[in-house]
Amino acid sequence: MSSSWNKLVKSLYGLPGVGPKMAERLAIYLLKYPNASLALEDAVRSAREKIRPCQMCGAFTEDDFCRICTDESRDKAQICVVEQMPDLAALERCRAFRGQYHILGGVLSPLDNVGPDDLRLDSLFHRVTQNNIREILLATNPTVEGEATAAYIAQNLKESGIRLSRLAYGLPSGSALEYADDITLARAVEGRQPI
Amino acid sequence: MSSSWNKLVKSLYGLPGVGPKMAERLAIYLLKYPNASLALEDAVRSAREKIRPCQMCGAFTEDDFCRICTDESRDKAQICVVEQMPDLAALERCRAFRGQYHILGGVLSPLDNVGPDDLRLDSLFHRVTQNNIREILLATNPTVEGEATAAYIAQNLKESGIRLSRLAYGLPSGSALEYADDITLARAVEGRQPI
Repeated sequence: MSSSWNKLVKSLYGLPGVGPKMAERLAIYLLKYPNASLALEDAVRSAREKIRPCQMCGAFTEDDFCRICTDESRDKAQICVVEQMPDLAALERCRAFRGQYHILGGVLSPLDNVGPDDLRLDSLFHRVTQNNIREILLATNPTVEGEATAAYIAQNLKESGIRLSRLAYGLPSGSALEYADDITLARAVEGRQPI
Repeated sequence: MSSSWNKLVKSLYGLPGVGPKMAERLAIYLLKYPNASLALEDAVRSAREKIRPCQMCGAFTEDDFCRICTDESRDKAQICVVEQMPDLAALERCRAFRGQYHILGGVLSPLDNVGPDDLRLDSLFHRVTQNNIREILLATNPTVEGEATAAYIAQNLKESGIRLSRLAYGLPSGSALEYADDITLARAVEGRQPI
């Protein structure tokens, strides 16, 4: 009921996914465990002060260019376009892609007032004209906005002659066919592979 | 993928209700909005530095005694015992109680290794002997642990002659009888009021 308490709850409430009840729960936790509170404060500050976007791909880095863009063993002729940083992290974990990345920072979403100018599209198109790119893998999410964004990019790069690709649609590994939704199943049939 | 990024995600993951995916989402949000990150950092620090428990009731305060314990208009002969700070806040919002509070800081929970010594019970019993208390309202949650904690306190105060009470059980306002669970409905019948 002190002003510091109200300030703490207010700064937590409004973070994505944090409602008023959860904000109170988090505030109590942070007051109960000063170590967690110290660690959070320190991490938030150093992230804000140190992390910046890679000047090439937009990934979070503490240098001018990120670890992947400066890695000579990566294929510079392949660019994988993703929405956000965690998408890059997920693709890196699966170890199936050895090219470079480009982070859009979101998706086209007219309802949320996100247009082409709000994404890192200019730097993508510039990058494509400057370097000798062979393939662009459009790895936006399989959502309406993700598809629309991929389609927009594909449209703009149609004349470039660069090979454009999209992540495969189909059944998730370990899933059950009987529980798959109609669209996923239809796409798995359309994209069926010879064995 | 920088170390500051990992540190930020790690400090968020593990907060109550925050999983790995939500930690990444929060981290992206905090990097995208430096204002939110500054506000959070500042609020977390000032809460840790300024907030302490009221020496009487244990509520969060920035002074030795909280606003309620120092309010001369409150009835000092009534103490409402609650589990946590948000419970006090909820009771204050409903404006039905004009006495003072005592915050336990949790509930008895053998499975979580929380025993009587981990709660603010000694200070409650001490408070009861020192002051002229007329009634103690045991407002722990209507859960197994909350009931057990209320029963434990009642047992310890049985000889004191102080009137002990518990919040009424019954149907929540605005709810539908047909959807009430059996225990709630049974208690609403047992506690029926003359009209």
